[in-house]
Amino acid sequence: MSPQESHSLGELGEFGLIASITADLADDPRVPVGPGDDGAVVRIDGDLVVSTDTVVEGVHFRNDWSLPHEVGQRAVAAAVADLIAMGARPVAMVVAFSAPADLPASWAKQCTQGMKLEAAKSGIALVGGDVTSGPAVTVAVTVLGDLAGHPPILRDGARPGDVVALRGRVGWSAAGLRVLSRGFRSPRVLVEAYKVPEVVYSAGGEARSGGATALIDISDGLLADLGHIADASGVRVNVDRAAFTLPDPLQAVSAAIGVDPWTFILTGGEDHAFAGTFSSPDRVPEGWLVIGEVLAGEPSVTVDGTAWEGASGWDHFHRS
Amino acid sequence: MSPQESHSLGELGEFGLIASITADLADDPRVPVGPGDDGAVVRIDGDLVVSTDTVVEGVHFRNDWSLPHEVGQRAVAAAVADLIAMGARPVAMVVAFSAPADLPASWAKQCTQGMKLEAAKSGIALVGGDVTSGPAVTVAVTVLGDLAGHPPILRDGARPGDVVALRGRVGWSAAGLRVLSRGFRSPRVLVEAYKVPEVVYSAGGEARSGGATALIDISDGLLADLGHIADASGVRVNVDRAAFTLPDPLQAVSAAIGVDPWTFILTGGEDHAFAGTFSSPDRVPEGWLVIGEVLAGEPSVTVDGTAWEGASGWDHFHRS
Repeated sequence: MSPQESHSLGELGEFGLIASITADLADDPRVPVGPGDDGAVVRIDGDLVVSTDTVVEGVHFRNDWSLPHEVGQRAVAAAVADLIAMGARPVAMVVAFSAPADLPASWAKQCTQGMKLEAAKSGIALVGGDVTSGPAVTVAVTVLGDLAGHPPILRDGARPGDVVALRGRVGWSAAGLRVLSRGFRSPRVLVEAYKVPEVVYSAGGEARSGGATALIDISDGLLADLGHIADASGVRVNVDRAAFTLPDPLQAVSAAIGVDPWTFILTGGEDHAFAGTFSSPDRVPEGWLVIGEVLAGEPSVTVDGTAWEGASGWDHFHRS
Repeated sequence: MSPQESHSLGELGEFGLIASITADLADDPRVPVGPGDDGAVVRIDGDLVVSTDTVVEGVHFRNDWSLPHEVGQRAVAAAVADLIAMGARPVAMVVAFSAPADLPASWAKQCTQGMKLEAAKSGIALVGGDVTSGPAVTVAVTVLGDLAGHPPILRDGARPGDVVALRGRVGWSAAGLRVLSRGFRSPRVLVEAYKVPEVVYSAGGEARSGGATALIDISDGLLADLGHIADASGVRVNVDRAAFTLPDPLQAVSAAIGVDPWTFILTGGEDHAFAGTFSSPDRVPEGWLVIGEVLAGEPSVTVDGTAWEGASGWDHFHRS
């Protein structure tokens, strides 16, 4: 370990970390004033979309499972996914970073490098933040996007007769977490999916081009999040399991640990795939998988026409 | 204690707390889509200003010193002060709330009531948030303001010949903290100033009307924050102690504990007063106190023409 790497966050200091984070930020015409003043100034086209998302050490990640840059990537990916799910274009983000003073400074720097790496994938700019001490690493990412004159794509627009389509993977992150919890490190693709979700940042634009009537980020689990569309739109949503091909690594893990693979697919959260509803199958964009239909009826989600037994999602204070 | 008050945050649940927070939000024409979707939609006039601020249990507040609504008020006040210091109009805020599952639900609810109480003072709307579990109560508030076609008021515009003026109190919060640290509860005005800073939310508009050349929120301490103006503007800032009247409670505490009252005035943080520079004394708005002048020279801050000995501010990892 080099002398620099042995520094603690306490030795580096609040202003030292901020300087290290902001040192290599590129000029951005959408950010007339970047970090360094009381606030950043951001140029917005049309209405603004804002969302915030937190990851906490020991709750959302473990230092023995995730590298610091993975923690940073994941925090940003989860937050930006919410902008995408509103049909917004990512513009700028601020980060509230809290950590013990004895955290290695290199950890904090690598975490912020991961944030910037993930941010670059969607074109969102880091424009500011706050660094404080606290008992556990806590990273709260607030993201700002703009709508460029378009209306947002909400959860309440699904109508009976719409089809339900999915963009991205589901169940991979939950299966990866299960693998790690059992003390294993493979299948590697699942573990990687848990550590850094692979967010399809183009999904918002795709959904808009297909005239999506509703759109949501799948963070709690497919059924739980479709339930939010069902509730907001006042419709029943049915998922057809026949639409899915069970991915090999999910099948392998399910067989090895004796878990129904559908538990991962239907209730696993944190992959940050997107579920949208479209007025007809021919409006579903390329790359999206039709997985069900919107029906009239009491707000609910069914699987192959019937209620799904068992846990449907995740509540941060009810570990279900 | 009523049955309801005996609930823990874990029993109330993430969605229960969110529902309780968002239940009584008023309709706001600037917020076309409030909480409940993947993000909130906010109508912005001109460029956007964004800033984020965190308070952590055991670092920024202690539960035996502050009531939950005071913690909420303080978190919002500190964050909104940054918007004011940019000359922005407060519009919307999001809150990332992290707490142990055994926190009383009433604590969380009262904290958010305090946030809304303080928010109403400046007209900022709570539009969303994230609730997660974590080892210590951590509240990260991100605030959004707009500039309505005006340029922001930055730190880099102070010019030799400008006067330096102050809006609000300095030293009260630090003195209040010292009182509490010694196990006392009075003078009450100082303790109150520590628990909930009294932010002059009109200061941004006042500063703009006076053509402020630079403006800053005093969160680290008067000398430390004037140092930020000096560095950004490439000027020397001098503070004249003769401009101040030492407030009685500060004098009383200083005498009682044997501390130079100027330590509080010049280096005490977290009152969230505002320091601005103006091109001439007759442009200084009503309610502002002229406390010094801007001079040519190496960026620095002097007191009565000479360097101030001792600590000048606060670094979250270097407790100076």
